[in-house]
Amino acid sequence: MANISILGLGAMGQALATRFLQREHRVTVWNRTPGKAASLIAQGARERNSAAEAIAASDVTVICVLDYGAAGSVIDAAASILSGRALVNLTNGTPAQARATAKRVAELGAEYLDGGIMATPPMIGGEHALILYSGSRATFDAHADSLEALGAANYLGADPGLASLHDLALLSGMYGVFAGFFHATALVDSEGIRSDSFLRLLGPWMAAMMGELPGYAQKIDSGRHGVNVVSNLGMQAASLENILTATREQGVATDLLEPMLELFRQRASAGFGHEDISGIFELMRRTRPGSRVPSGRAKPAGAP
Amino acid sequence: MANISILGLGAMGQALATRFLQREHRVTVWNRTPGKAASLIAQGARERNSAAEAIAASDVTVICVLDYGAAGSVIDAAASILSGRALVNLTNGTPAQARATAKRVAELGAEYLDGGIMATPPMIGGEHALILYSGSRATFDAHADSLEALGAANYLGADPGLASLHDLALLSGMYGVFAGFFHATALVDSEGIRSDSFLRLLGPWMAAMMGELPGYAQKIDSGRHGVNVVSNLGMQAASLENILTATREQGVATDLLEPMLELFRQRASAGFGHEDISGIFELMRRTRPGSRVPSGRAKPAGAP
Repeated sequence: MANISILGLGAMGQALATRFLQREHRVTVWNRTPGKAASLIAQGARERNSAAEAIAASDVTVICVLDYGAAGSVIDAAASILSGRALVNLTNGTPAQARATAKRVAELGAEYLDGGIMATPPMIGGEHALILYSGSRATFDAHADSLEALGAANYLGADPGLASLHDLALLSGMYGVFAGFFHATALVDSEGIRSDSFLRLLGPWMAAMMGELPGYAQKIDSGRHGVNVVSNLGMQAASLENILTATREQGVATDLLEPMLELFRQRASAGFGHEDISGIFELMRRTRPGSRVPSGRAKPAGAP
Repeated sequence: MANISILGLGAMGQALATRFLQREHRVTVWNRTPGKAASLIAQGARERNSAAEAIAASDVTVICVLDYGAAGSVIDAAASILSGRALVNLTNGTPAQARATAKRVAELGAEYLDGGIMATPPMIGGEHALILYSGSRATFDAHADSLEALGAANYLGADPGLASLHDLALLSGMYGVFAGFFHATALVDSEGIRSDSFLRLLGPWMAAMMGELPGYAQKIDSGRHGVNVVSNLGMQAASLENILTATREQGVATDLLEPMLELFRQRASAGFGHEDISGIFELMRRTRPGSRVPSGRAKPAGAP
């Protein structure tokens, strides 16, 4: 059994610590404000009075605090004892924050693994929990068995920003699903149709439409948006305009889908109305050094 | 076998006619501009020189033209012979257009069934094709067997606007799925990750997140967004803001998800940050006579 420390005892930190205790690891905990450890101590955890003491107590330390500002404070406070330690930072943040933290930790002589938790606290340890990792491969390999107890552990690469990048990308996909659901449901609600009843039609339909995604992925990867086009962008722009007109006529807010129509129009105006809607990807994507500059780009790279 | 006429021989009209011919119905076709019927005639269809002649030749007529303007022209041209006929209009349009057309057809003494085709032309007659109907129940019942040949036939009610309403709502749900996919994929593309490779992670994740929809539907139907909240709107607003910040840092356009963050902020500002994100529904939905006025509404009902 491993010695594992947990820094941060919010709902997620408590869930992580509980799961490690269930697997009979030796768990040491610390929280910035006291009084959060009682139930964990009752389950066998030991509490320390400082982050440095907690880190020093274990082979590996999991950090799960409010944000990277809080994570940075923890690391600074323990700077003098970090050399040779392994940190696994599961705090929510951006790829840039993960990379900056990895750099700081490396300067202090410690190993750094960043992670993104694709689960809510009650899901931790369950079959649907997924945790993405990137950064120190050695740390991942050394502790993969312990980490698997929290959820399926997926290592994405040495760049410490990759876990956060994938985490945020998956969440953005989820918010698209939710946006479609809210718009669709508000539209039928305008005639008094219940959401749960409509969902019996909408759910299978949305699941079926996910079958279109591999085709779009292929067009994105090849950059060829004009092949195998069934319903072209010009036709779909007309269809989406029709949807938003009807939405307004029904007295429902069109906000969530307006930007997609705007991207359809921009791409059609640039002469790509006969191609597939996957062409709007060229308006959204980053222009990388050495890549061709997409025509009709929505915004310059990095513009707010 | 039935006598069926098809008005409009675009890609969808041709697919409908072909499917009826495969089922050995007696098919009569007409198109505004000539020269579209050759392959259908070779399969046994008869062509007529006017919409009125085609309507007069069959028990039931399916209209599938460019838009409701074109459908209206067809109906006007055949006004004198419509009495006692049955029309099934599968033209794309809005609920308001469907209702206006139903009124006009009723004045001419004919039965009117409106429909929305949830399929592309190649899908017609296949197991995944779905066609929604509303309007004349008598027409639906009399011709359901024939119509089932095109795809699963789902009758939604006597209001002729319901099929179009559900059609547009389902499509809006689909566009939400696509928006989430495009945003998520552009985010990982910023680090050179291929779309097809990322989709192996994104696809199952989006499918899993659809499991949240029944819970949101329940909150919408009950109007109680504060029960069983796992991750509240305030936390999710911070999370979505983090996603959009990272998206900008990666040089990727944030357009598709900005309105959702704006709705989260509006709802949080109105004092509902501790409730679930389903609360944004109250900002989007139509305010119906007799219903309570939602607080913090995004737009007045019917505003463009």
